Amino acid sequence: MKAHAKKSFPLAKIRRFLEPGPIVLVTSAHRGERNVMTLGWHMVLGFEPALVGCFIWDQNHSFSLIRRSKECVINVPTFDTVDAVIGVGNTHGPGVDKFEQFGLTPVDASKVRAPLIAECYASFECKLVDGRMINRYSLFVFEVVKAHVASSPRYPKTVHYRGDGVFMVSGRNVSYRRRFKRDNL
Amino acid sequence: MKAHAKKSFPLAKIRRFLEPGPIVLVTSAHRGERNVMTLGWHMVLGFEPALVGCFIWDQNHSFSLIRRSKECVINVPTFDTVDAVIGVGNTHGPGVDKFEQFGLTPVDASKVRAPLIAECYASFECKLVDGRMINRYSLFVFEVVKAHVASSPRYPKTVHYRGDGVFMVSGRNVSYRRRFKRDNL
Repeated sequence: MKAHAKKSFPLAKIRRFLEPGPIVLVTSAHRGERNVMTLGWHMVLGFEPALVGCFIWDQNHSFSLIRRSKECVINVPTFDTVDAVIGVGNTHGPGVDKFEQFGLTPVDASKVRAPLIAECYASFECKLVDGRMINRYSLFVFEVVKAHVASSPRYPKTVHYRGDGVFMVSGRNVSYRRRFKRDNL
Repeated sequence: MKAHAKKSFPLAKIRRFLEPGPIVLVTSAHRGERNVMTLGWHMVLGFEPALVGCFIWDQNHSFSLIRRSKECVINVPTFDTVDAVIGVGNTHGPGVDKFEQFGLTPVDASKVRAPLIAECYASFECKLVDGRMINRYSLFVFEVVKAHVASSPRYPKTVHYRGDGVFMVSGRNVSYRRRFKRDNL
């Protein structure tokens, strides 16, 4: 798996990487512990500020690390890292360093203690801004406070979960820009 | 655009059509009015019961129809209906019958008054079960109470929004079923 060179990216535009619905790898850190989990249930909730809702099951070890630290990084993997995506999804923390086990390289973030993943196409540093839906829906509302995105390829080959062990790989990209109302872009 | 013959589908499995992140067409009806909108911000929030969160902007005409009727249908379109998806997204109700204008055929639902769309691959009849996040996040929590899904093709060519007028069309499907922990499928 290769590391992606990333650049800072405008927060109001990060929705273009999450809105198509890719599987993501969420990293967390708290008091010397770190973890990474595979997550498929998330949605964009705003673009200025950039808000993202994530369903994090309370049986995941990451649940308590993120609730206590109030931070995480949402990393967008591509198809070439699918083995790590499956491996992380199959492995329960703590007790295993999933970064080492699955060849994921942690990189220091700038505004949170959870690490970025070098092999992911994009990494979004997040602060928990609303925890009131955690008990009822396992729903964490994060604000993205810093975004790192690879400058190439233009459109990453993301991985989307269809259930039953099947991944859909993102296909071709078609621009209809001229047919959109400008306000809707 | 062709109509899809649909069958009833188990509610606990409908996440396989929404989790990959397709654009959806949400229909609504209230007191003789009906509407359809294009929606990209949604997430699965549970599978038993089948819960889906949808961000519906308060400037959309559908917002008030859905809030008042407490019902909608989430329809999953495929790439062959992309013209209708864009047309609906560009058009503001009320005053226009978007079904007629964009060649979408409304079909009676069984448990809600909002119509199914014949040309969509899947249609999920929904009841609003939690409106407490509407004011703060425009977030509606729906329970899917009846699902209609086409029996072929096995994997629909769904449309995913990348922003800036660009749609990603779902690509190939790869099964890793044997490598998944059974509980995670």
